Amino acid sequence: MTKPFLHVVRPEEVSELLSQFDALDLEEVCTEDALHRVIGKPVIAREELPSFDRATMDGFVVRAADTFGASESAPALFRIVGEVTMGAVVDRSPGRGEALRIWTGGALPPGCDAVVMVEHTEELDGNSVEVLRAVAPFENVVRKGEDCRAEETLLSPGHRLRPQDLGLLAAMGISSIVAHRKPVIAVASSGDEIVSIEDETPAGCMRDVNRYTLTAMVQESYALPIWLGIAADHLPDISSLIDRGLQQADLVLISGGSSMGSRDLVIETIKSRLDSRILVHGVSISPGKPLIVARVGDKAVFGLPGHPVSAMVCFEHFVVPLMRRLEGEDVVAPYLRPTVSAVLGRNVASREGRTDYVRVRLQQTADGMVAIPVLAKSGMISGMVRAQGFVRIEPDCEGLYKGEQVTVHLFSNWIEDRRAQKYLSGHEAAGGRAGHFLETPQQERLSRV
Amino acid sequence: MTKPFLHVVRPEEVSELLSQFDALDLEEVCTEDALHRVIGKPVIAREELPSFDRATMDGFVVRAADTFGASESAPALFRIVGEVTMGAVVDRSPGRGEALRIWTGGALPPGCDAVVMVEHTEELDGNSVEVLRAVAPFENVVRKGEDCRAEETLLSPGHRLRPQDLGLLAAMGISSIVAHRKPVIAVASSGDEIVSIEDETPAGCMRDVNRYTLTAMVQESYALPIWLGIAADHLPDISSLIDRGLQQADLVLISGGSSMGSRDLVIETIKSRLDSRILVHGVSISPGKPLIVARVGDKAVFGLPGHPVSAMVCFEHFVVPLMRRLEGEDVVAPYLRPTVSAVLGRNVASREGRTDYVRVRLQQTADGMVAIPVLAKSGMISGMVRAQGFVRIEPDCEGLYKGEQVTVHLFSNWIEDRRAQKYLSGHEAAGGRAGHFLETPQQERLSRV
Repeated sequence: MTKPFLHVVRPEEVSELLSQFDALDLEEVCTEDALHRVIGKPVIAREELPSFDRATMDGFVVRAADTFGASESAPALFRIVGEVTMGAVVDRSPGRGEALRIWTGGALPPGCDAVVMVEHTEELDGNSVEVLRAVAPFENVVRKGEDCRAEETLLSPGHRLRPQDLGLLAAMGISSIVAHRKPVIAVASSGDEIVSIEDETPAGCMRDVNRYTLTAMVQESYALPIWLGIAADHLPDISSLIDRGLQQADLVLISGGSSMGSRDLVIETIKSRLDSRILVHGVSISPGKPLIVARVGDKAVFGLPGHPVSAMVCFEHFVVPLMRRLEGEDVVAPYLRPTVSAVLGRNVASREGRTDYVRVRLQQTADGMVAIPVLAKSGMISGMVRAQGFVRIEPDCEGLYKGEQVTVHLFSNWIEDRRAQKYLSGHEAAGGRAGHFLETPQQERLSRV
Repeated sequence: MTKPFLHVVRPEEVSELLSQFDALDLEEVCTEDALHRVIGKPVIAREELPSFDRATMDGFVVRAADTFGASESAPALFRIVGEVTMGAVVDRSPGRGEALRIWTGGALPPGCDAVVMVEHTEELDGNSVEVLRAVAPFENVVRKGEDCRAEETLLSPGHRLRPQDLGLLAAMGISSIVAHRKPVIAVASSGDEIVSIEDETPAGCMRDVNRYTLTAMVQESYALPIWLGIAADHLPDISSLIDRGLQQADLVLISGGSSMGSRDLVIETIKSRLDSRILVHGVSISPGKPLIVARVGDKAVFGLPGHPVSAMVCFEHFVVPLMRRLEGEDVVAPYLRPTVSAVLGRNVASREGRTDYVRVRLQQTADGMVAIPVLAKSGMISGMVRAQGFVRIEPDCEGLYKGEQVTVHLFSNWIEDRRAQKYLSGHEAAGGRAGHFLETPQQERLSRV
């Protein structure tokens, strides 16, 4: 039972190695279903937007030159010769000194080049109106092609679609786009002691946590999770799960069995395949050190640490960027999280050369926001539940002092009113009793469950 | 054709008025499907977690006292009397000076209270092992109940579920929870000039943009959109759409027709109902001023501005908080967005008493990140596409100067590599020609399309 030490690489090296995986195929997607999909081919404007000079105000449409010199004390008089019907066009060009009623969104008649806001007019009777202020040419007008010009590139490959992008596609009448396939991510757990939450839990067993956390993180990253099952600590069992994952998915995640114990079978299973190559076994982050990344055929297989917190940290920092790459994005950073500034509530030790992810809970005090490190081992899921975010300690830093200003990356895009929060509230004191917030380097190296 | 001025209220007053709407009913939801759902009843721990003292390391399980005084130079000798099988329990309590092999996740046998990491041992033969370092009681162990205690409140009402929360529910064997119903949001557009993207676009007409932007924003807010259709500028048409929305949904959004023009029928339609009350008509934000909020029966109806940008700003700042309230959350702020710090690329004027949302695009320069205001009227969707986020100008501020440090709220949780971005790139110069970035107060008051 001797254990070799992991050959630990820096997080940037992992990112570099992940750049060898190619983007997935392209497919056609309805604009209606295209939110968060990544564009695969340039989207070109078919026509000008708007397709006509359009009023941005309610009022009177005129020739701007006819208003020049008009003021409250010397209004310009216009004859009202009709109105612009919404959704229709006026063929006839009004003469000098003639105006038509128009509403926001109406098309300017030929010859007209400005709209006088109704607030700047005084209607004398149904047939004539005084303009109290001069308008410049194209004032209160969106000109034909001002929003987009024909043949312009609207969206480039690699761009992930936001609500406004769908709006632009709709405005152009583009009802489908070409996007990369959504990655299908196979999730599996491993370990003789791990049981499904549907089953009885015999003494000495633990229910599967990573299935739920990882599947949810896949969903949050706009990809499609599939669940493979729980493998026993038995090489053929693990092997058949990975096989099934490779057949059904673009990426396989198996948690547990990624440290260097004599019974760590995930790495042996991967090594036993002819078409496999281990890219990473061990990364200098905490928690999350015993990460495995392998290439099997043209797909990636991740052996994530079994400790729930470690698996989540690895997912965020390595799986998310790879999923984005599979979807055709250029970037290799995880998704950004909302942040808040806070003052650290107690000293936190770190170790040079390692990136630490310190889970914190936030407390609003009279002196501002305080980030209190959560005392919980990486095998304890409640620590992640009590935390609202994390503080990152860079590899060149040996720790942070109580009272230092820190940036907290939030786990969600909402902050709850903690005064209303009672859950796990009595736990903090108890955690202090037995828990250690940061694992020692030795502990971290071997974390497994 | 005279137009009364809007009675404009401050954004905080709108939020206050929205607090009159109650949370939706409760329903049972499978843990597997519960991501982002809001807890309706406290979730209580049924048992202790873990249910046994558990090893967090691979190594040997011992009585800690037997290692006291052990060191590299004076190791303590232990007899190996067996191993702890994963997922099983050992009944027999080892004697003094006896050790069992154990792996991370294994259950401590009775009488044992610590695990010696394998790195701190030297195995002599299959039967005996030297311990090179003393361990304290409960070192390398998660104690029974240390993660959660039985009867502890795990999650409180009002909490929106994150991936780790699902993990905790799974760990406890809780396969369903009670949550508030997901809000169903009915989306409609209005205007004679608005046509569906599937249809021909006659001269003078515009394709419907708001359907796509608003539906996508509903999806991003974890709610369920339904599409009602496009109403003509005709009172019975608008009325029947609102009726259908009230029957099918928890909240109705109709865009267009929210200013004070003589043809603005949304407000007239709402006023014509016996069970309705106008709560807001006009809010001091830009873009987005001509917002309508009404209560019809016990539901809210929003008349959103027709200009796509204005509708999106109103959605973010008023509809999102209401949706969250319907789901049972206490907070009334919109979802937080990731932010970046940048230097403003040009002067931006504002007006005291109004909150401005300045759309900006980001440019990475040698001197750092620069936020360049996007020149586009609020009726131009391309302005939102070119922008990566917004800068908020508070009501007590008359504008921001070029070179000032600003916080940019990003529209997405990713930043694209703008060097790789070509789309709408030639547009910026063109926008400068005709567009005005910030509407004047007069313009904003009447924005409609």
